[in-house]
Amino acid sequence: MSRKKIVIIGGVAGGASCAARCRRLDETAEILLLDRGPYVSFANCGLPYYVGDVIKDESKLLLASEALFRDRFNIEVRTRHEAVAIDRDKREIEVRELATGRVYRESYDVLVLSPGAMAVRPPLPGIDLPGIFVMRSIPDSRDVRAWIDAKQAKSAVVVGGGFIGLEMAENLAHRGLSVTVVEMLNQVMPPLDPEMAQPVQQHMKDHGIKMALGDGVAGFETNGTGQLVVSTKSGAAHAGDLVILAIGVRPETALAKAAGLELGERGGIRVDDQMHTSDPHIWAVGDAVETRDIVTNQATLIPLAGPANRQGRIAADVICGRDSHFRGVQGTAICGVFGIAVASTGASEKALQRAGITDYEKVYLHPNHHVGYYPGAKSINLKLIFRKSDGRILGAQAVGEADVARRIDVIATAIQFGGTVYDLEEAELCYAPQFGGAKDPVNFAGMIASNALRGDNPLADWGQLGSESVFLLDVRDPDEFEEGHIPGAVNLPLNEIRSRMEELPRDREISIYCGVGQRAYYATRILLQNGYHARNLAGGIRTYKQIEAANRY
Amino acid sequence: MSRKKIVIIGGVAGGASCAARCRRLDETAEILLLDRGPYVSFANCGLPYYVGDVIKDESKLLLASEALFRDRFNIEVRTRHEAVAIDRDKREIEVRELATGRVYRESYDVLVLSPGAMAVRPPLPGIDLPGIFVMRSIPDSRDVRAWIDAKQAKSAVVVGGGFIGLEMAENLAHRGLSVTVVEMLNQVMPPLDPEMAQPVQQHMKDHGIKMALGDGVAGFETNGTGQLVVSTKSGAAHAGDLVILAIGVRPETALAKAAGLELGERGGIRVDDQMHTSDPHIWAVGDAVETRDIVTNQATLIPLAGPANRQGRIAADVICGRDSHFRGVQGTAICGVFGIAVASTGASEKALQRAGITDYEKVYLHPNHHVGYYPGAKSINLKLIFRKSDGRILGAQAVGEADVARRIDVIATAIQFGGTVYDLEEAELCYAPQFGGAKDPVNFAGMIASNALRGDNPLADWGQLGSESVFLLDVRDPDEFEEGHIPGAVNLPLNEIRSRMEELPRDREISIYCGVGQRAYYATRILLQNGYHARNLAGGIRTYKQIEAANRY
Repeated sequence: MSRKKIVIIGGVAGGASCAARCRRLDETAEILLLDRGPYVSFANCGLPYYVGDVIKDESKLLLASEALFRDRFNIEVRTRHEAVAIDRDKREIEVRELATGRVYRESYDVLVLSPGAMAVRPPLPGIDLPGIFVMRSIPDSRDVRAWIDAKQAKSAVVVGGGFIGLEMAENLAHRGLSVTVVEMLNQVMPPLDPEMAQPVQQHMKDHGIKMALGDGVAGFETNGTGQLVVSTKSGAAHAGDLVILAIGVRPETALAKAAGLELGERGGIRVDDQMHTSDPHIWAVGDAVETRDIVTNQATLIPLAGPANRQGRIAADVICGRDSHFRGVQGTAICGVFGIAVASTGASEKALQRAGITDYEKVYLHPNHHVGYYPGAKSINLKLIFRKSDGRILGAQAVGEADVARRIDVIATAIQFGGTVYDLEEAELCYAPQFGGAKDPVNFAGMIASNALRGDNPLADWGQLGSESVFLLDVRDPDEFEEGHIPGAVNLPLNEIRSRMEELPRDREISIYCGVGQRAYYATRILLQNGYHARNLAGGIRTYKQIEAANRY
Repeated sequence: MSRKKIVIIGGVAGGASCAARCRRLDETAEILLLDRGPYVSFANCGLPYYVGDVIKDESKLLLASEALFRDRFNIEVRTRHEAVAIDRDKREIEVRELATGRVYRESYDVLVLSPGAMAVRPPLPGIDLPGIFVMRSIPDSRDVRAWIDAKQAKSAVVVGGGFIGLEMAENLAHRGLSVTVVEMLNQVMPPLDPEMAQPVQQHMKDHGIKMALGDGVAGFETNGTGQLVVSTKSGAAHAGDLVILAIGVRPETALAKAAGLELGERGGIRVDDQMHTSDPHIWAVGDAVETRDIVTNQATLIPLAGPANRQGRIAADVICGRDSHFRGVQGTAICGVFGIAVASTGASEKALQRAGITDYEKVYLHPNHHVGYYPGAKSINLKLIFRKSDGRILGAQAVGEADVARRIDVIATAIQFGGTVYDLEEAELCYAPQFGGAKDPVNFAGMIASNALRGDNPLADWGQLGSESVFLLDVRDPDEFEEGHIPGAVNLPLNEIRSRMEELPRDREISIYCGVGQRAYYATRILLQNGYHARNLAGGIRTYKQIEAANRY
């Protein structure tokens, strides 16, 4: 039996998973794990919380030490050793020992690339000023902590409103800093559609974060008081004692590219569904690779720990002679900020549009996370996107204070199985008063969507609001209507529709709304059966407010 | 167009859902909803919490009033009207108005039976003594509240350790009463297997509830101090100021039976998957009907609100000319007691054994609900049952303080789609440090099970523990071993196995355990690859303690 030599470059999620599983499948292999950083297998997802003192002990971020790899897995780890070149013909890599500068060669039978992704640092004026940080490693977070302490920092500017940006904003606020978030797009949380990101933006503001959206950074400078000033393309200037750059990551492909490995259309390392690169002796996993989005069927870069771990396992399986396949990614993700969770799975409307997919419909709803009669019910703001032609679930987004992950996880699971909205209607989920409803929020989402597809609850298009040809009907009670309504709406409460429907036009589409969509559904049913062209503005005035606020940016 | 007359007997979950959906699908139908109780559409799941003062306002339990049915749905509701006979030939029912005793006939085109289930009241001596209550209606809960106040009750005996029994025990304790639970079986929570119910029993005890398991009630009497005394078959006597009878429910089939409708093998009303009874003009839904369990394929009685609602909708669809089908039940359920959740979906081992199904395997695990490095991680006690021949998921049970519903809901969804443990391995679920792990508990369950089925992690049988032919190996560290281990175990820490494996027997099966199963898995991999007959005692010493405690009853 030949003793296979497996060399793995990059020792965080994907690389570490791959190394450990290679050992479990092959006791005899020689396994060498290299990382140019000082640690392998550290919890990069925990870095913002270490900065925020939520995680107080740095050592908790170290999930597995070099000693553990050696003693438990018989895996040799060399940290601060950087692979600088791959000699594919000789099956050797060139490694630089960072402490000494010594360069040496290491042979391999199998090479696994798990180099990860690097923070994007655009070449803007002042980008290298002290006090501008990224958040990719334990030393990064240590530097931020040290800077905050040394400068007694009172304020910070976070550039970027994605997951890391918002987590950093929360954690810096938790440390007592006044925080401004600057984001080039008109919304935070790019995986979400703008109207679903809107409540997140509002929530950040409600917790004292200054939000500067739709404004790109022009440059950085220091002012007279030693603060950093972030100037933007609109001419605004945001000062802070430190700056966090969180505008995304780029796959680390330099090594692969130099070695002539194929890259994909999105700029990541190209791999097949067995994590093979274009070289039969080289595999690649994690943030550096392009994978297939199972909803849009397009190449995608998903820098998340879950898929990286799965890829590491698949690569190990294949390296050890098994016929495993990576099923692709669906982009399930979640972020917590100031007590709310923001989660999504599958494709957003934006992503479908980018992919040229038009065969879709969407519903909005705002169900309670558990029955309203049990104390403490919190509303979940939910959007479900599905194929119009057959009801297949394409994606979901949710924001709320409680049990958001649970509902997105259920929908993620349904997407994994190619499920439809009709399946969600019929899902049998946990119910007790403090844990849900006899009709779960997921059931409701499925019912509303199914009712739409069956023609029982035709959906009005929020984008058509204000069209002259549409009669806008508010079926809430008069007191609700008086408190605020959509401009141009006429009020006719649900319970009076049967007796007063002759007041409504028979020759125009009637777009109906209420608070969240339920009464409008009932009204739609009554009017449709009486020959009216009724449609439901799904999600009601709560969704209207989100759309309207999102459009204001 | 003929105006169809739909009469629905029973106005809670199934009947109320059916009535409302009938109206949504048919504006012209005449719909009459009868209930012998004082309320329709009330929250029976909330009753224990009303007794416990968690829900303080009784009116919150009324989900929809008679006026709402009339004004919103144009449905006539008659409460305190009891259907006493069905004249199937004439398509009429005989109704008694309870307030006056007047009996009248009502014709129908379509009749829907949603009579529910009644609390079992065994004919024991003293069963009708004042102070013995069941918990099925708002008046029931009002009576208990009044009794507690009037007697200034300090103690209670709850007979029955199922969902309602445990919820009542918690709520009475919440009111300051000292509570004893008497249960005939050797475990609480009958949908769970005994070793999974064991931590629930322990938790109840830890919260001051006296648990008397494995002891049936013999009778009731009053003692000199005005207390009720519950005497048991073992000769014990439990005194309390009141008694709650929560030993299950029985389908209300008297009316259906008298009318000659077919009953099923479990004693419920027999229906097809369109909720038709044996009479083409009569449908039945809810707790009174037998449905098909999609895992065991057997007839079952599931008195839960979720399935009742779905059945009501299906019946309405079919009544209104649609081709809807009820997909059956999988028994997803949850119960909260003293801060933990106890949930299950699909079949238990007991249920599989009852159904004569032997092609199954199971794994136990104890993952954290989110990563351990983020503060506040709570362990989830999880059991996954799956088909040995193809990995199909058959059931899951979970107990824990946090995010239990979420994991059971994901597995419930996978069961709905006929998913396998290999699918769970590949599930892409929400992950951020405070919301899970890069490998979610569901992924871990899938991985452990998949590893077992692939032969990578053969499972030892906990039931074979103590067999002479098996070598029992504890691979934890010596200090853990010293603190307590399974009798007969030999300690060889995981990290020393590679260097000391010659100490282990090559000719016997080696059953390996650790704390929760992970180190034992690693040890199993090492030994298997070195020619040993290694097997993993899944769940580790934590599962051992549960099994051992459950066996003690």
